[in-house]
Amino acid sequence: MAPKYLTGDKAGISEFLDRFDVFLFDCDGVLWSGDHLFPGTAETIDMLRKKGKQLVFVTNNSTKSRADYKKKFDSMGIEAKVEEVFGSSYSASIYISRILKLQAPKNKVFVLGESGIEQELESENVPYCGGTDPSLRRDIEPEDYKKIADGSMLDPEVGCVLTGLDFHVNYLKLSLAFAYLRQGAVFLATNTDSTLPNSHTLFPGAGAVGAPLVKAIGREPLALGKPSQAMMDAIEGKFQFDRSRTCMIGDRLNTDIQFGIEGKLGGTLAVLTGVSKKEEFLAEGAEVVPTAYVDKLGDLLG
Amino acid sequence: MAPKYLTGDKAGISEFLDRFDVFLFDCDGVLWSGDHLFPGTAETIDMLRKKGKQLVFVTNNSTKSRADYKKKFDSMGIEAKVEEVFGSSYSASIYISRILKLQAPKNKVFVLGESGIEQELESENVPYCGGTDPSLRRDIEPEDYKKIADGSMLDPEVGCVLTGLDFHVNYLKLSLAFAYLRQGAVFLATNTDSTLPNSHTLFPGAGAVGAPLVKAIGREPLALGKPSQAMMDAIEGKFQFDRSRTCMIGDRLNTDIQFGIEGKLGGTLAVLTGVSKKEEFLAEGAEVVPTAYVDKLGDLLG
Repeated sequence: MAPKYLTGDKAGISEFLDRFDVFLFDCDGVLWSGDHLFPGTAETIDMLRKKGKQLVFVTNNSTKSRADYKKKFDSMGIEAKVEEVFGSSYSASIYISRILKLQAPKNKVFVLGESGIEQELESENVPYCGGTDPSLRRDIEPEDYKKIADGSMLDPEVGCVLTGLDFHVNYLKLSLAFAYLRQGAVFLATNTDSTLPNSHTLFPGAGAVGAPLVKAIGREPLALGKPSQAMMDAIEGKFQFDRSRTCMIGDRLNTDIQFGIEGKLGGTLAVLTGVSKKEEFLAEGAEVVPTAYVDKLGDLLG
Repeated sequence: MAPKYLTGDKAGISEFLDRFDVFLFDCDGVLWSGDHLFPGTAETIDMLRKKGKQLVFVTNNSTKSRADYKKKFDSMGIEAKVEEVFGSSYSASIYISRILKLQAPKNKVFVLGESGIEQELESENVPYCGGTDPSLRRDIEPEDYKKIADGSMLDPEVGCVLTGLDFHVNYLKLSLAFAYLRQGAVFLATNTDSTLPNSHTLFPGAGAVGAPLVKAIGREPLALGKPSQAMMDAIEGKFQFDRSRTCMIGDRLNTDIQFGIEGKLGGTLAVLTGVSKKEEFLAEGAEVVPTAYVDKLGDLLG
């Protein structure tokens, strides 16, 4: 069915909002772009709260913890609670602690990523190594090859490799992660987005940073971010919502909108302030089509 | 047809060697492993030369130039001429200079790799940037995102991205390479080996190092190393041999032996001193099967 265009359609907006009790929001490209807040964002969030809607902010950005995200909301002047934020690092940490349940002495996670992942692992009491360890932010040396080969540089407690967006990726960290995977470590990714929007263009995303491991080991990680339904299950486990009364709002068809469709939510809403263009879902034979769309989130104010 | 086992079979060896005028050798895993020369290697090379065979040393290792490889042969006590060495960096450089023929002002190559690639590009007078440039061996900074986005950090002459094995890969270099690819640069790889043997185990290979770009841009590079037939064509262009009288000797089924089979050479010889095991090609339904095999190269001495 063709998506309904809601911008400027007061009656259409009202009817659409009445269909849902819960709204899942993607953040970057929907609420803001980098440090630029889209007009009407804060007012729309307020309006939905006043209508009694439950809001969950769902982000694949693994470099920030929920606490980091709360600070971002504060700085943008948007009301949000830490408990309303659901990031891919948190999703991965919950998966590891509550579903994977790694047993000692093989319960440590080798992290390829930034501090956001580390903070969320700590919040679930999951032991980890790698990550932002400054001793790994260097070139690989001839001795390292031997120490990785003979195992003396490897932590015997590592039973899982978790990859996310790592701005400090290097050959040494990739070699360590690969060695753990060869030993049989569980292979997880916070998310596998191929690109990362920044400064109005695209940079390599978390999926690109982890791609060397996929290529070297010859298998894909289990991804815990959108559109993986492992993330939807984790959100549902926490918030206990009725999927038929829930709407996913996002700017990316192949992550956000697909996430909502595969999760059998009551509806999806695309905004045109991010990556995907309306031509993509209005085209004949488009594979991922939202229920409705607006030019920008603030258009929901009517 | 089942491969013939030649170790200890004097008549079989003699008959096999008589079928060929040219032998293409893989190096690591065939002649030596790292710094360990396999017994009988030098004597086998001598024996083949005395029989008047033409020898070509074909390697996917992009970190070394032909001149670097000549030094390695010297240090190992094996007679070899620079002209007999054919590496993936040289193959890529020939492809760029003689087939791609990039036109000024878009004729510069952005290199993700080590000095071996740079040396071979210089030998073909191909201008390049990136590579071992020390100013790129650092973390990405907030300003870099803006300068990459607005183009001020990009070299307007770059028309090609060449990826190989880069032990100094980082997010900044990946971001630059990705930006050039988004601008339409030709995407080449010296080789796409997923792994690199070292210290009797495996590390991420050139294909793994370049994988972030493949994931981010969503297309594969043209690979100029084994088993790409672009490399076979380049070798043939230089040495003018009769393929039916040529044999490829290697240790990897999915690169060396496949390279020879796809190149319709007269034969292939597997050695068991490297990556692939005989169980792989002796198995029922094996996909890549050599013409013959020996335990080690020196067994050809009979």
